[in-house]
Amino acid sequence: MDRRDFLKGTAATGVFTQAGGSFAASAEPRRERRIATEEAWSTAAHMRAMDELAALPSDNLDLISRRGVPTDGPLYRALIDDEERLRQMDELGIDMHVLSLTSPGVQMLPADRAIALAEQTNDRMAETVARNPYRFAGLASFAPQDPVAAAREMERAVARLGLHGFVVNSHTDNRYLDEPFFWPILEAAEALDRPIYIHPRAPADTMAGPFREHNMHAAIWGFQAETGTHAMRLILSGVFDRFPRLQIVLGHMGESIPFNLWRADYQFERRRERQRSSLVPSEVFRRNFTITTSGVEHDPTLRYCIEVLGADRIMWAIDYPYQPMAGALEAMNQARISDSDRALIFHRNAERLFHIPPL
Amino acid sequence: MDRRDFLKGTAATGVFTQAGGSFAASAEPRRERRIATEEAWSTAAHMRAMDELAALPSDNLDLISRRGVPTDGPLYRALIDDEERLRQMDELGIDMHVLSLTSPGVQMLPADRAIALAEQTNDRMAETVARNPYRFAGLASFAPQDPVAAAREMERAVARLGLHGFVVNSHTDNRYLDEPFFWPILEAAEALDRPIYIHPRAPADTMAGPFREHNMHAAIWGFQAETGTHAMRLILSGVFDRFPRLQIVLGHMGESIPFNLWRADYQFERRRERQRSSLVPSEVFRRNFTITTSGVEHDPTLRYCIEVLGADRIMWAIDYPYQPMAGALEAMNQARISDSDRALIFHRNAERLFHIPPL
Repeated sequence: MDRRDFLKGTAATGVFTQAGGSFAASAEPRRERRIATEEAWSTAAHMRAMDELAALPSDNLDLISRRGVPTDGPLYRALIDDEERLRQMDELGIDMHVLSLTSPGVQMLPADRAIALAEQTNDRMAETVARNPYRFAGLASFAPQDPVAAAREMERAVARLGLHGFVVNSHTDNRYLDEPFFWPILEAAEALDRPIYIHPRAPADTMAGPFREHNMHAAIWGFQAETGTHAMRLILSGVFDRFPRLQIVLGHMGESIPFNLWRADYQFERRRERQRSSLVPSEVFRRNFTITTSGVEHDPTLRYCIEVLGADRIMWAIDYPYQPMAGALEAMNQARISDSDRALIFHRNAERLFHIPPL
Repeated sequence: MDRRDFLKGTAATGVFTQAGGSFAASAEPRRERRIATEEAWSTAAHMRAMDELAALPSDNLDLISRRGVPTDGPLYRALIDDEERLRQMDELGIDMHVLSLTSPGVQMLPADRAIALAEQTNDRMAETVARNPYRFAGLASFAPQDPVAAAREMERAVARLGLHGFVVNSHTDNRYLDEPFFWPILEAAEALDRPIYIHPRAPADTMAGPFREHNMHAAIWGFQAETGTHAMRLILSGVFDRFPRLQIVLGHMGESIPFNLWRADYQFERRRERQRSSLVPSEVFRRNFTITTSGVEHDPTLRYCIEVLGADRIMWAIDYPYQPMAGALEAMNQARISDSDRALIFHRNAERLFHIPPL
């Protein structure tokens, strides 16, 4: 049995995960806690609301996309089936999912309905977490359509419901969180010391043009174009001077930003006097952002991101149910990284950022 | 003197360039030929045409951008000053620049004027190359506004003028080269066995929305969003099934595509039956694309791209005069890569792709 088979075997039984090979710090393989941090979840009420939206006449790419997938199919059923999720987690030895309401959350609904649905789904999420507090953590939704109401719900979600952070699905009505209109949300996240996970959605109507053919709008390309652009707007707008402790999480290895960070710094410095941020992009990115491995089971990319950002800024994620659990787990088990980096990425960074008590 | 200083010294004198350290294949440092492949150039007539365009009332991001830079300033003067260019090349020991008409070329002019200006600048470029055939090669411009005329000019540029390939500055009137309208251009490039360098410009009007604030539209982020999107459209549209030998060049380490290639393949395979291309994105990218290092002087990114694509798909570039020659040269000299990879990236790939005779 070669190393690959050995690791596959251990992944399947869940007995060991860290046969580090030449990277092992000790001879004894250790079983690291495994916390997956971008795991989509929903409720029947949320699914119904999305179906109603998708039935409206609209050329919005998120709605076009939704029309292509049956709500009663296996993909969407997996979002609301906590037992099936736990069964797969048990089978593979995955300790915890950090749940988040699936994209586009409540962000396409009228404000009053979005506020009510965010409250309702956060209540349901808190119940799910309470039933299995060692298996689930949760990121609260809010309605950016009404930032003051959003901030109120964010406080309730942490103080009353005990949730662990927040999720927002990129733009809201084609607007981005760097606009002062949304600052109550950034202020609340900073004050509550909980991160905002900026999850993808399809490119905003204001940039949708080139993404309308060849299925370009979704995970194959458009998601990172939209979400990376959102994050770069935050970085360049200077909001992190105003909210220096605000923490943002980006999935999919950072939505192309790590790859462009040297160039962004260079171009930023070239016209330093015109910039609105006091820090260069890489300083902001390494201080205020954490990326996750969701959707990317690729060792060279993981090692490159560790080299560029440091392992303390990377968390493991699957992107369940849009990607299966086994592949993401195997990729992380087999990654040619140090044991200490693997521990950071598998659980320690998530414990710190989301205030999940260590075991 | 440490290795860094030694290499700096050799870069400045131009005597040696390849002190490979632990990567050296032989004990004797070799002086590799250095061909820089994305070097902007212009003519006084082209500069005047751009100034006239910029004076028109328009919220197009390329024109807004141009209004910010004086045509008689040092940046634009450097585009048309061949002697100053050669002086700097001599000083640093740079053998050759592959010249291309600076962005957005002729693509924003009315078709008849664009056709005439492309011919005129190609003639001028051919004269520049003829005066210094060991120091300059050239990529011909064409007017995508009229694809049949463009194909005719492409043939003239290779057969009559001896130019080495073509440059297009991403979209033309918010349209992309995958549209059948433009196929005469792709067909001509394939038949002539010369690559098309897709150089950035600001995001198309149809995706410009989120790029209008914080200087987001240019090299700091928008250029790669626009140009990477263009290239992904080509890949996903299936045009490389129709033109399997067509070669495309992308600058700036591939405009984020190498970083997203694993995910693109995964998402492509997930819905294989709906795809228009018979090959997965990475197969197309490794067969039909070559990237350059323009604007990115970052060793981890270079090594990552070699790992993902192979060194035979990467060429050295500076992005002069938008970035200085010295930094790009130093980054390449100091890159922790093998001597054979350095030779491929410094000159061998460019010689093969652009039909530049080896020394």
